[in-house]
Amino acid sequence: MRIRLDLAYDGTGFHGWAAQPGLRTVQGELTLALVTALRVPDVELVCAGRTDAGVHARGQVAHTDVEEPPPLDSLVRRLNGILPPDVRIRGAAEAPASFDARFAALWRRYAYRIADRPAALDPLARSHVLAWSRPLDMDAMNAASALLVGRHDFASFCKQREGATTIRTLEELSWARDGDGVLVGTVRADAFCHSMVRSLVGCLIAVGEGRKPVAWAGEILRAETRSPSVAVVHPHGLTLEEVAYPPDDELEARVAQTRAKRVAGE
Amino acid sequence: MRIRLDLAYDGTGFHGWAAQPGLRTVQGELTLALVTALRVPDVELVCAGRTDAGVHARGQVAHTDVEEPPPLDSLVRRLNGILPPDVRIRGAAEAPASFDARFAALWRRYAYRIADRPAALDPLARSHVLAWSRPLDMDAMNAASALLVGRHDFASFCKQREGATTIRTLEELSWARDGDGVLVGTVRADAFCHSMVRSLVGCLIAVGEGRKPVAWAGEILRAETRSPSVAVVHPHGLTLEEVAYPPDDELEARVAQTRAKRVAGE
Repeated sequence: MRIRLDLAYDGTGFHGWAAQPGLRTVQGELTLALVTALRVPDVELVCAGRTDAGVHARGQVAHTDVEEPPPLDSLVRRLNGILPPDVRIRGAAEAPASFDARFAALWRRYAYRIADRPAALDPLARSHVLAWSRPLDMDAMNAASALLVGRHDFASFCKQREGATTIRTLEELSWARDGDGVLVGTVRADAFCHSMVRSLVGCLIAVGEGRKPVAWAGEILRAETRSPSVAVVHPHGLTLEEVAYPPDDELEARVAQTRAKRVAGE
Repeated sequence: MRIRLDLAYDGTGFHGWAAQPGLRTVQGELTLALVTALRVPDVELVCAGRTDAGVHARGQVAHTDVEEPPPLDSLVRRLNGILPPDVRIRGAAEAPASFDARFAALWRRYAYRIADRPAALDPLARSHVLAWSRPLDMDAMNAASALLVGRHDFASFCKQREGATTIRTLEELSWARDGDGVLVGTVRADAFCHSMVRSLVGCLIAVGEGRKPVAWAGEILRAETRSPSVAVVHPHGLTLEEVAYPPDDELEARVAQTRAKRVAGE
């Protein structure tokens, strides 16, 4: 039986999602908890978004396969009893065999939060909101963001890896202030390459500060090569908020489509 | 010149607002920062709500008097540069001489947050949301809350102190779920006696769990004596959200009114 897990974590104390020997990771902690709760020697875990060190998640999705299906309500309770307080399971549900947390995803939505004025500073949110000492021009950031939306080669914003494509469809990139005045960037795409969101935000902060004009964001994109003038901002302002999947009867087709893109190096 | 300071803090690492020898307090840290920033031997600080150990604030207000008025924008920046990250100054403004953070306040509004289901668990908010392992009946809690609103003797919910009145006007007590399903209690009154909000919430949780009927809240109130069956809930779910003041030309009258009540033992 395939199980879908919905989970949230405070990334502060983790070296990211992916298990690494000797390092505290979300995958490592969750694997340990599952092995204990299910009384099995090992489990395989696949997640929707392999978040980097320091990045948080409210809407992370993972799947795993179990031979003997446990009662799901008590599984959530047991996992939360075993897991450390910085990871919480928000739900567990039986999923169709065709469900794949990674390859069936339609899009991932991240939020990047910035407190750019004293009135927006909230010590209770300091773990996941970047404090920025200069005020940012939201309108300029939105104008620059609009130049980046769409299907492009995001090589300028990606850590280049041999043979991997950097073409992505950026479906949404926009900024708004929440009730407390915190500047919240919404970034939604079919998929992201490594450090892409944090590079996009770094570029847009330069525009928001007035250090660069709006058009500069488009120039960086068209250069299709990584520029040292684009900073990769701190991970702690970034949170994976939501992953979307198609209805059950379209899962198989979506997985096939994603895998085909991968084979084509896309 | 009188200065009004608006501030926020994560109460986790503090033994409350009020300065105590040898203990880390918000008043202690803020006094130290003001003395450094203003280069004066000492300052007096008066706050709107003397929060207990572990209680947070987003809308705390304090006042202090300075002889040489500093530029207020740079004062905010300097204080935030000196203060530890769990206290932030959100604003500093010149206030009329008749402004008094404590005695001029019209009301204080607190929020108590409870995550009573796995889907509402957010590790990023765990410092200020109480995790409760059983689901709570919000409608029952609202029905019981309605019995407590108004001007009453809240002795049943107060730590009794010799000679001090426990009559208060509870202007609002209600529960709603936010977008993530977190149960948020709003508690607003002219003033609170010691541990009053946490006792009210303890009483209402018993009703929300179904351990006690709705009418029990009214019985406890009418008993006018502290009952061991009312638990004082954990401070970390409680946040001082807002303090309201009258317009400047009504400050003096409000302060006189509050002081008169105090003299009358009310």
